[in-house]
Amino acid sequence: MNLSIFGLKNIPYLKEGDSIEKLIEESIKTSEFFIEDNDVLCIASKVVSIAEGQVMSLNEIQVSDVAKEIHRNIPRKDPRIIEIMLNLVNRDLSRLDIKKNYIGCRLENGLKLTSGGIDRKSVDEVFLLPNNPDASAKRISEYLKKSLGKNVAVVITDSDGREDKRGATQVAIGIYGIHPLRKTEVIDSQGETIKFQEETLCDMIAACAGLVMGQRGTGIPAVLIRGLDYKWSENTSIKEALNE
Amino acid sequence: MNLSIFGLKNIPYLKEGDSIEKLIEESIKTSEFFIEDNDVLCIASKVVSIAEGQVMSLNEIQVSDVAKEIHRNIPRKDPRIIEIMLNLVNRDLSRLDIKKNYIGCRLENGLKLTSGGIDRKSVDEVFLLPNNPDASAKRISEYLKKSLGKNVAVVITDSDGREDKRGATQVAIGIYGIHPLRKTEVIDSQGETIKFQEETLCDMIAACAGLVMGQRGTGIPAVLIRGLDYKWSENTSIKEALNE
Repeated sequence: MNLSIFGLKNIPYLKEGDSIEKLIEESIKTSEFFIEDNDVLCIASKVVSIAEGQVMSLNEIQVSDVAKEIHRNIPRKDPRIIEIMLNLVNRDLSRLDIKKNYIGCRLENGLKLTSGGIDRKSVDEVFLLPNNPDASAKRISEYLKKSLGKNVAVVITDSDGREDKRGATQVAIGIYGIHPLRKTEVIDSQGETIKFQEETLCDMIAACAGLVMGQRGTGIPAVLIRGLDYKWSENTSIKEALNE
Repeated sequence: MNLSIFGLKNIPYLKEGDSIEKLIEESIKTSEFFIEDNDVLCIASKVVSIAEGQVMSLNEIQVSDVAKEIHRNIPRKDPRIIEIMLNLVNRDLSRLDIKKNYIGCRLENGLKLTSGGIDRKSVDEVFLLPNNPDASAKRISEYLKKSLGKNVAVVITDSDGREDKRGATQVAIGIYGIHPLRKTEVIDSQGETIKFQEETLCDMIAACAGLVMGQRGTGIPAVLIRGLDYKWSENTSIKEALNE
Protein backbone atom coordinates (compact mmCIF):
# COMPACT_ATOMS: atom_id res chain seq x y z
CA MET A 1 0.00 0.00 0.00
CA ASN A 2 1.54 3.30 -1.12
CA LEU A 3 -0.03 6.64 -0.22
CA SER A 4 -0.09 10.09 -1.75
CA ILE A 5 -0.68 13.12 0.44
CA PHE A 6 -1.87 16.37 -1.12
CA GLY A 7 -2.25 19.71 0.61
CA LEU A 8 -5.33 21.63 -0.57
CA LYS A 9 -4.32 25.09 -1.68
CA ASN A 10 -6.02 28.43 -2.18
CA ILE A 11 -8.33 28.09 0.81
CA PRO A 12 -8.65 31.69 2.05
CA TYR A 13 -8.74 32.74 5.71
CA LEU A 14 -12.25 31.92 6.85
CA LYS A 15 -14.76 34.08 8.63
CA GLU A 16 -17.88 33.09 10.51
CA GLY A 17 -20.61 31.87 8.20
CA ASP A 18 -18.26 30.86 5.37
CA SER A 19 -19.01 27.45 3.92
CA ILE A 20 -15.93 25.33 4.53
CA GLU A 21 -17.33 22.65 2.22
CA LYS A 22 -17.74 25.14 -0.64
CA LEU A 23 -14.18 26.46 -0.13
CA ILE A 24 -12.85 22.90 -0.20
CA GLU A 25 -14.84 22.15 -3.35
CA GLU A 26 -13.35 25.23 -5.04
CA SER A 27 -9.85 24.31 -3.89
CA ILE A 28 -10.20 20.81 -5.35
CA LYS A 29 -11.57 22.14 -8.64
CA THR A 30 -8.49 24.32 -9.10
CA SER A 31 -5.95 21.74 -7.89
CA GLU A 32 -3.53 19.71 -9.98
CA PHE A 33 -5.31 16.61 -8.64
CA PHE A 34 -9.00 15.69 -8.46
CA ILE A 35 -10.67 13.74 -5.67
CA GLU A 36 -11.34 10.05 -6.10
CA ASP A 37 -13.66 7.65 -4.32
CA ASN A 38 -12.13 6.49 -1.02
CA ASP A 39 -9.77 9.42 -0.67
CA VAL A 40 -9.59 10.60 2.94
CA LEU A 41 -9.97 14.33 3.49
CA CYS A 42 -8.55 15.76 6.71
CA ILE A 43 -9.68 19.18 7.89
CA ALA A 44 -8.28 21.23 10.76
CA SER A 45 -10.96 21.72 13.42
CA LYS A 46 -10.08 25.42 13.58
CA VAL A 47 -11.52 26.23 10.16
CA VAL A 48 -14.60 24.15 10.88
CA SER A 49 -15.06 26.05 14.16
CA ILE A 50 -14.75 29.41 12.40
CA ALA A 51 -17.21 28.44 9.67
CA GLU A 52 -19.67 27.20 12.29
CA GLY A 53 -19.32 30.32 14.43
CA GLN A 54 -17.76 28.51 17.39
CA VAL A 55 -16.15 31.68 18.68
CA MET A 56 -16.76 32.93 22.23
CA SER A 57 -16.07 36.31 23.74
CA LEU A 58 -14.17 36.11 27.02
CA ASN A 59 -15.68 39.36 28.24
CA GLU A 60 -19.02 37.72 28.99
CA ILE A 61 -17.47 35.06 31.23
CA GLN A 62 -18.13 35.21 34.98
CA VAL A 63 -15.12 33.65 36.68
CA SER A 64 -16.20 31.40 39.55
CA ASP A 65 -14.26 30.83 42.77
CA VAL A 66 -13.35 27.33 41.59
CA ALA A 67 -11.84 28.72 38.39
CA LYS A 68 -9.92 31.33 40.44
CA GLU A 69 -8.54 28.58 42.66
CA ILE A 70 -7.38 26.51 39.66
CA HIS A 71 -5.87 29.65 38.14
CA ARG A 72 -3.68 30.04 41.25
CA ASN A 73 -2.13 26.64 40.44
CA ILE A 74 -1.65 27.40 36.77
CA PRO A 75 -1.29 31.20 36.46
CA ARG A 76 -0.35 31.01 32.78
CA LYS A 77 -3.92 30.02 31.91
CA ASP A 78 -6.54 32.78 31.65
CA PRO A 79 -9.12 32.21 34.43
CA ARG A 80 -11.92 32.92 31.97
CA ILE A 81 -10.71 30.03 29.80
CA ILE A 82 -10.56 27.83 32.90
CA GLU A 83 -14.19 28.80 33.55
CA ILE A 84 -15.19 27.66 30.05
CA MET A 85 -13.37 24.37 30.67
CA LEU A 86 -15.29 23.89 33.91
CA ASN A 87 -18.49 24.21 31.90
CA LEU A 88 -17.20 21.77 29.26
CA VAL A 89 -16.80 19.12 31.99
CA ASN A 90 -20.09 20.00 33.70
CA ARG A 91 -18.03 21.25 36.67
CA ASP A 92 -16.76 17.71 37.35
CA LEU A 93 -13.19 18.36 38.52
CA SER A 94 -12.23 14.70 38.10
CA ARG A 95 -12.42 15.31 34.37
CA LEU A 96 -9.71 17.98 34.56
CA ASP A 97 -6.08 16.87 34.70
CA ILE A 98 -3.95 19.68 36.10
CA LYS A 99 -0.18 19.48 36.08
CA LYS A 100 2.35 22.30 36.07
CA ASN A 101 1.54 24.47 33.04
CA TYR A 102 -0.87 21.89 31.64
CA ILE A 103 -4.64 21.36 31.83
CA GLY A 104 -6.10 18.33 30.15
CA CYS A 105 -9.85 18.28 29.84
CA ARG A 106 -11.94 15.15 29.28
CA LEU A 107 -14.90 16.15 27.11
CA GLU A 108 -18.37 14.69 27.37
CA ASN A 109 -17.71 11.99 24.76
CA GLY A 110 -14.50 10.87 26.52
CA LEU A 111 -12.00 12.68 24.32
CA LYS A 112 -9.20 14.24 26.35
CA LEU A 113 -7.64 17.39 24.92
CA THR A 114 -5.25 20.04 26.17
CA SER A 115 -7.40 22.97 27.36
CA GLY A 116 -10.46 21.11 26.05
CA GLY A 117 -9.50 22.13 22.53
CA ILE A 118 -10.09 25.81 23.39
CA ASP A 119 -7.77 27.98 21.34
CA ARG A 120 -7.21 31.71 21.73
CA LYS A 121 -8.36 33.84 18.80
CA SER A 122 -7.47 37.25 20.20
CA VAL A 123 -7.04 38.96 23.58
CA ASP A 124 -10.73 38.63 24.32
CA GLU A 125 -11.94 35.79 22.13
CA VAL A 126 -11.45 32.04 21.87
CA PHE A 127 -12.31 29.33 19.38
CA LEU A 128 -14.24 26.39 20.77
CA LEU A 129 -14.28 22.99 19.07
CA PRO A 130 -16.98 22.36 16.49
CA ASN A 131 -20.15 21.50 18.36
CA ASN A 132 -20.43 18.01 16.84
CA PRO A 133 -17.32 17.14 14.78
CA ASP A 134 -18.78 13.84 13.51
CA ALA A 135 -21.76 15.75 12.13
CA SER A 136 -19.47 18.35 10.54
CA ALA A 137 -17.46 15.57 8.89
CA LYS A 138 -20.64 13.98 7.55
CA ARG A 139 -22.01 17.28 6.24
CA ILE A 140 -18.79 18.05 4.35
CA SER A 141 -18.56 14.54 2.89
CA GLU A 142 -22.18 14.63 1.74
CA TYR A 143 -21.69 18.05 0.16
CA LEU A 144 -18.68 16.78 -1.83
CA LYS A 145 -20.59 13.67 -2.88
CA LYS A 146 -23.35 15.88 -4.24
CA SER A 147 -21.14 18.51 -5.86
CA LEU A 148 -18.23 16.38 -7.11
CA GLY A 149 -19.76 12.90 -7.20
CA LYS A 150 -17.14 11.16 -5.07
CA ASN A 151 -17.28 9.35 -1.72
CA VAL A 152 -14.61 10.95 0.43
CA ALA A 153 -14.11 9.99 4.08
CA VAL A 154 -13.62 13.04 6.29
CA VAL A 155 -11.53 13.33 9.46
CA ILE A 156 -11.67 16.49 11.58
CA THR A 157 -8.29 16.99 13.26
CA ASP A 158 -7.08 19.00 16.22
CA SER A 159 -3.59 19.61 17.50
CA ASP A 160 -2.69 17.90 20.73
CA GLY A 161 0.39 16.60 22.46
CA ARG A 162 1.71 13.80 24.61
CA GLU A 163 2.79 14.15 28.20
CA ASP A 164 6.34 12.98 27.49
CA LYS A 165 6.98 14.93 24.31
CA ARG A 166 7.43 18.59 23.46
CA GLY A 167 5.19 20.12 20.83
CA ALA A 168 1.94 18.93 19.33
CA THR A 169 0.83 16.49 16.70
CA GLN A 170 -2.65 16.10 15.25
CA VAL A 171 -5.38 13.79 16.53
CA ALA A 172 -8.84 12.99 15.22
CA ILE A 173 -11.89 14.53 16.92
CA GLY A 174 -14.57 13.72 14.34
CA ILE A 175 -14.95 11.21 11.53
CA TYR A 176 -17.23 10.09 8.70
CA GLY A 177 -17.02 7.39 6.03
CA ILE A 178 -14.26 5.33 7.62
CA HIS A 179 -14.05 3.36 10.84
CA PRO A 180 -11.78 5.13 13.34
CA LEU A 181 -10.04 1.90 14.37
CA ARG A 182 -8.23 -0.76 12.35
CA LYS A 183 -7.80 -4.33 13.49
CA THR A 184 -4.46 -5.79 12.49
CA GLU A 185 -3.75 -9.48 12.47
CA VAL A 186 -0.34 -10.20 13.93
CA ILE A 187 1.21 -13.19 12.17
CA ASP A 188 4.28 -15.05 13.39
CA SER A 189 7.17 -16.40 11.32
CA GLN A 190 5.24 -19.64 10.63
CA GLY A 191 2.28 -17.71 9.23
CA GLU A 192 0.10 -18.38 12.28
CA THR A 193 -2.15 -15.69 13.72
CA ILE A 194 -0.94 -14.96 17.23
CA LYS A 195 -3.15 -11.99 18.11
CA PHE A 196 -5.30 -9.15 16.83
CA GLN A 197 -4.05 -5.68 17.49
CA GLU A 198 -6.25 -2.60 17.46
CA GLU A 199 -4.83 0.50 15.83
CA THR A 200 -6.04 4.07 16.27
CA LEU A 201 -6.32 4.55 12.51
CA CYS A 202 -8.04 7.95 12.85
CA ASP A 203 -5.12 9.42 14.80
CA MET A 204 -2.52 8.08 12.37
CA ILE A 205 -4.52 9.69 9.56
CA ALA A 206 -4.68 12.98 11.48
CA ALA A 207 -0.94 12.98 12.26
CA CYS A 208 -0.12 12.15 8.66
CA ALA A 209 -2.19 15.14 7.53
CA GLY A 210 -0.42 17.23 10.16
CA LEU A 211 2.88 16.71 8.34
CA VAL A 212 1.49 18.79 5.46
CA MET A 213 -0.94 21.05 7.33
CA GLY A 214 1.51 22.39 9.83
CA GLN A 215 3.85 24.10 7.47
CA ARG A 216 4.63 27.65 8.39
CA GLY A 217 2.28 30.19 6.97
CA THR A 218 1.18 28.16 3.99
CA GLY A 219 -2.42 28.13 5.15
CA ILE A 220 -3.22 24.53 4.34
CA PRO A 221 -6.12 23.58 6.62
CA ALA A 222 -7.16 20.57 4.53
CA VAL A 223 -5.17 17.60 3.28
CA LEU A 224 -6.12 14.68 1.05
CA ILE A 225 -4.77 11.16 1.64
CA ARG A 226 -4.98 8.82 -1.34
CA GLY A 227 -4.35 5.10 -1.45
CA LEU A 228 -5.42 4.09 2.04
CA ASP A 229 -7.02 0.65 1.96
CA TYR A 230 -10.27 0.85 3.95
CA LYS A 231 -13.92 -0.10 3.73
CA TRP A 232 -16.34 2.77 3.14
CA SER A 233 -18.60 2.96 6.14
CA GLU A 234 -21.37 5.48 6.75
CA ASN A 235 -22.21 4.73 10.36
CA THR A 236 -19.02 5.84 12.05
CA SER A 237 -18.32 8.02 15.04
CA ILE A 238 -15.18 9.11 16.84
CA LYS A 239 -16.82 7.62 19.94
CA GLU A 240 -15.92 4.14 18.69
CA ALA A 241 -12.24 5.04 19.16
CA LEU A 242 -12.68 6.46 22.67
CA ASN A 243 -11.99 4.67 25.92
CA GLU A 244 -14.85 4.70 28.37
CA MET B 1 4.10 20.23 -0.04
CA ASN B 2 2.87 16.85 -1.31
CA LEU B 3 4.17 13.58 0.10
CA SER B 4 4.56 10.06 -1.21
CA ILE B 5 4.62 7.15 1.20
CA PHE B 6 6.11 3.83 0.11
CA GLY B 7 6.07 0.59 2.05
CA LEU B 8 9.31 -1.37 1.69
CA LYS B 9 8.58 -4.89 0.54
CA ASN B 10 10.30 -8.24 0.63
CA ILE B 11 11.88 -7.75 4.03
CA PRO B 12 11.88 -11.27 5.48
CA TYR B 13 11.14 -12.13 9.12
CA LEU B 14 14.30 -11.25 10.97
CA LYS B 15 16.31 -13.32 13.37
CA GLU B 16 18.95 -12.23 15.84
CA GLY B 17 22.14 -11.10 14.17
CA ASP B 18 20.50 -10.26 10.82
CA SER B 19 21.58 -6.92 9.42
CA ILE B 20 18.45 -4.77 9.23
CA GLU B 21 20.37 -2.20 7.15
CA LYS B 22 21.38 -4.84 4.59
CA LEU B 23 17.80 -6.15 4.34
CA ILE B 24 16.55 -2.60 3.81
CA GLU B 25 19.19 -1.99 1.14
CA GLU B 26 18.11 -5.16 -0.69
CA SER B 27 14.45 -4.22 -0.39
CA ILE B 28 15.14 -0.78 -1.91
CA LYS B 29 17.20 -2.28 -4.73
CA THR B 30 14.29 -4.50 -5.77
CA SER B 31 11.57 -1.86 -5.29
CA GLU B 32 9.70 0.04 -7.96
CA PHE B 33 11.16 3.23 -6.41
CA PHE B 34 14.71 4.17 -5.44
CA ILE B 35 15.71 6.26 -2.45
CA GLU B 36 16.50 9.94 -2.89
CA ASP B 37 18.37 12.44 -0.76
CA ASN B 38 16.15 13.76 2.05
CA ASP B 39 13.76 10.85 1.99
CA VAL B 40 12.75 9.83 5.52
CA LEU B 41 12.98 6.13 6.33
CA CYS B 42 10.85 4.86 9.22
CA ILE B 43 11.67 1.50 10.78
CA ALA B 44 9.64 -0.41 13.35
CA SER B 45 11.64 -0.76 16.57
CA LYS B 46 10.70 -4.43 16.71
CA VAL B 47 12.88 -5.42 13.75
CA VAL B 48 15.74 -3.29 15.05
CA SER B 49 15.41 -5.03 18.43
CA ILE B 50 15.50 -8.46 16.81
CA ALA B 51 18.53 -7.62 14.67
CA GLU B 52 20.33 -6.24 17.71
CA GLY B 53 19.50 -9.25 19.86
CA GLN B 54 17.30 -7.31 22.29
CA VAL B 55 15.42 -10.43 23.35
CA MET B 56 15.21 -11.50 26.99
CA SER B 57 14.17 -14.80 28.47
CA LEU B 58 11.58 -14.43 31.23
CA ASN B 59 12.76 -17.62 32.91
CA GLU B 60 15.86 -15.95 34.31
CA ILE B 61 13.86 -13.18 36.02
CA GLN B 62 13.67 -13.16 39.82
CA VAL B 63 10.34 -11.52 40.73
CA SER B 64 10.76 -9.11 43.65
CA ASP B 65 8.15 -8.39 46.33
CA VAL B 66 7.53 -4.96 44.81
CA ALA B 67 6.79 -6.52 41.41
CA LYS B 68 4.44 -9.02 43.08
CA GLU B 69 2.61 -6.18 44.82
CA ILE B 70 2.17 -4.25 41.55
CA HIS B 71 1.03 -7.47 39.86
CA ARG B 72 -1.81 -7.74 42.41
CA ASN B 73 -3.12 -4.39 41.12
CA ILE B 74 -2.76 -5.33 37.47
CA PRO B 75 -3.07 -9.13 37.30
CA ARG B 76 -3.14 -9.15 33.49
CA LYS B 77 0.53 -8.18 33.39
CA ASP B 78 3.13 -10.95 33.84
CA PRO B 79 5.01 -10.21 37.12
CA ARG B 80 8.29 -11.03 35.37
CA ILE B 81 7.62 -8.27 32.86
CA ILE B 82 6.79 -5.91 35.73
CA GLU B 83 10.17 -6.82 37.23
CA ILE B 84 11.94 -5.85 33.98
CA MET B 85 10.05 -2.53 34.03
CA LEU B 86 11.21 -1.91 37.60
CA ASN B 87 14.76 -2.30 36.36
CA LEU B 88 14.11 0.01 33.39
CA VAL B 89 13.12 2.79 35.84
CA ASN B 90 15.95 1.99 38.27
CA ARG B 91 13.27 0.88 40.76
CA ASP B 92 11.90 4.45 40.96
CA LEU B 93 8.15 3.85 41.32
CA SER B 94 7.34 7.48 40.54
CA ARG B 95 8.37 6.69 36.97
CA LEU B 96 5.67 4.02 36.67
CA ASP B 97 2.10 5.12 35.93
CA ILE B 98 -0.29 2.35 36.96
CA LYS B 99 -3.97 2.52 36.08
CA LYS B 100 -6.44 -0.30 35.64
CA ASN B 101 -4.99 -2.62 32.98
CA TYR B 102 -2.31 -0.09 32.04
CA ILE B 103 1.32 0.47 33.04
CA GLY B 104 3.14 3.42 31.58
CA CYS B 105 6.86 3.49 32.13
CA ARG B 106 9.05 6.58 31.90
CA LEU B 107 12.40 5.48 30.50
CA GLU B 108 15.73 6.98 31.47
CA ASN B 109 15.69 9.53 28.64
CA GLY B 110 12.18 10.74 29.58
CA LEU B 111 10.23 8.81 26.96
CA LYS B 112 7.03 7.33 28.39
CA LEU B 113 5.82 4.12 26.80
CA THR B 114 3.20 1.53 27.61
CA SER B 115 5.00 -1.32 29.40
CA GLY B 116 8.28 0.48 28.71
CA GLY B 117 8.12 -0.75 25.14
CA ILE B 118 8.50 -4.36 26.27
CA ASP B 119 6.68 -6.65 23.87
CA ARG B 120 6.02 -10.34 24.31
CA LYS B 121 7.79 -12.60 21.84
CA SER B 122 6.60 -15.96 23.14
CA VAL B 123 5.39 -17.51 26.40
CA ASP B 124 8.84 -17.12 27.94
CA GLU B 125 10.52 -14.38 25.95
CA VAL B 126 10.12 -10.65 25.41
CA PHE B 127 11.53 -8.05 23.04
CA LEU B 128 13.12 -5.04 24.68
CA LEU B 129 13.57 -1.73 22.87
CA PRO B 130 16.80 -1.21 20.93
CA ASN B 131 19.47 -0.25 23.43
CA ASN B 132 20.09 3.17 21.84
CA PRO B 133 17.54 3.92 19.11
CA ASP B 134 19.28 7.17 18.03
CA ALA B 135 22.47 5.20 17.46
CA SER B 136 20.58 2.52 15.53
CA ALA B 137 19.02 5.21 13.32
CA LYS B 138 22.43 6.74 12.67
CA ARG B 139 24.04 3.37 11.87
CA ILE B 140 21.32 2.50 9.34
CA SER B 141 21.46 5.93 7.69
CA GLU B 142 25.25 5.80 7.40
CA TYR B 143 25.09 2.31 5.92
CA LEU B 144 22.63 3.45 3.24
CA LYS B 145 24.76 6.52 2.51
CA LYS B 146 27.72 4.25 1.91
CA SER B 147 25.92 1.55 -0.05
CA LEU B 148 23.39 3.60 -2.03
CA GLY B 149 24.91 7.07 -1.94
CA LYS B 150 21.89 8.91 -0.52
CA ASN B 151 21.29 10.87 2.66
CA VAL B 152 18.20 9.39 4.23
CA ALA B 153 16.91 10.51 7.63
CA VAL B 154 15.89 7.57 9.82
CA VAL B 155 13.13 7.43 12.44
CA ILE B 156 12.78 4.37 14.68
CA THR B 157 9.11 3.95 15.59
CA ASP B 158 7.26 2.08 18.29
CA SER B 159 3.54 1.50 18.75
CA ASP B 160 1.95 3.37 21.63
CA GLY B 161 -1.44 4.74 22.55
CA ARG B 162 -3.21 7.63 24.21
CA GLU B 163 -5.09 7.45 27.48
CA ASP B 164 -8.37 8.56 25.91
CA LYS B 165 -8.28 6.46 22.77
CA ARG B 166 -8.53 2.76 22.02
CA GLY B 167 -5.77 1.12 20.03
CA ALA B 168 -2.26 2.24 19.27
CA THR B 169 -0.56 4.56 16.84
CA GLN B 170 3.17 4.90 16.20
CA VAL B 171 5.54 7.29 17.95
CA ALA B 172 9.22 8.04 17.41
CA ILE B 173 11.79 6.60 19.83
CA GLY B 174 15.00 7.30 17.88
CA ILE B 175 16.01 9.67 15.11
CA TYR B 176 18.89 10.66 12.82
CA GLY B 177 19.31 13.22 10.05
CA ILE B 178 16.26 15.35 10.87
CA HIS B 179 15.34 17.49 13.87
CA PRO B 180 12.55 15.82 15.87
CA LEU B 181 10.64 19.09 16.34
CA ARG B 182 9.34 21.63 13.81
CA LYS B 183 8.68 25.25 14.65
CA THR B 184 5.66 26.64 12.85
CA GLU B 185 5.02 30.33 12.47
CA VAL B 186 1.35 31.09 13.07
CA ILE B 187 0.28 33.97 10.86
CA ASP B 188 -2.96 35.91 11.23
CA SER B 189 -5.27 37.11 8.47
CA GLN B 190 -3.20 40.31 8.08
CA GLY B 191 -0.03 38.30 7.48
CA GLU B 192 1.41 39.14 10.91
CA THR B 193 3.26 36.54 12.97
CA ILE B 194 1.26 36.00 16.15
CA LYS B 195 3.16 33.09 17.67
CA PHE B 196 5.52 30.22 17.05
CA GLN B 197 4.14 26.77 17.62
CA GLU B 198 6.27 23.71 18.25
CA GLU B 199 5.23 20.53 16.49
CA THR B 200 6.30 16.99 17.36
CA LEU B 201 7.42 16.33 13.80
CA CYS B 202 9.00 12.97 14.68
CA ASP B 203 5.71 11.58 16.00
CA MET B 204 3.73 12.77 12.97
CA ILE B 205 6.31 11.04 10.77
CA ALA B 206 6.01 7.85 12.84
CA ALA B 207 2.19 7.88 12.76
CA CYS B 208 2.21 8.52 9.02
CA ALA B 209 4.47 5.49 8.54
CA GLY B 210 2.12 3.52 10.80
CA LEU B 211 -0.67 3.93 8.24
CA VAL B 212 1.33 1.72 5.86
CA MET B 213 3.26 -0.44 8.35
CA GLY B 214 0.29 -1.67 10.30
CA GLN B 215 -1.45 -3.49 7.53
CA ARG B 216 -2.51 -6.97 8.42
CA GLY B 217 0.08 -9.60 7.75
CA THR B 218 1.86 -7.73 4.98
CA GLY B 219 5.12 -7.60 6.93
CA ILE B 220 6.12 -4.03 6.13
CA PRO B 221 8.44 -2.97 8.95
CA ALA B 222 9.94 -0.07 7.00
CA VAL B 223 8.31 2.84 5.20
CA LEU B 224 9.77 5.65 3.11
CA ILE B 225 8.34 9.19 3.20
CA ARG B 226 9.25 11.37 0.23
CA GLY B 227 8.66 15.08 -0.21
CA LEU B 228 8.92 16.28 3.38
CA ASP B 229 10.51 19.72 3.50
CA TYR B 230 13.23 19.63 6.17
CA LYS B 231 16.82 20.58 6.73
CA TRP B 232 19.31 17.68 6.85
CA SER B 233 20.82 17.66 10.30
CA GLU B 234 23.35 15.19 11.65
CA ASN B 235 23.37 16.12 15.32
CA THR B 236 19.89 15.08 16.29
CA SER B 237 18.51 13.04 19.15
CA ILE B 238 15.05 12.02 20.23
CA LYS B 239 15.93 13.67 23.56
CA GLU B 240 15.38 17.08 21.97
CA ALA B 241 11.68 16.19 21.64
CA LEU B 242 11.30 14.95 25.21
CA ASN B 243 9.90 16.89 28.13
CA GLU B 244 12.10 16.97 31.16
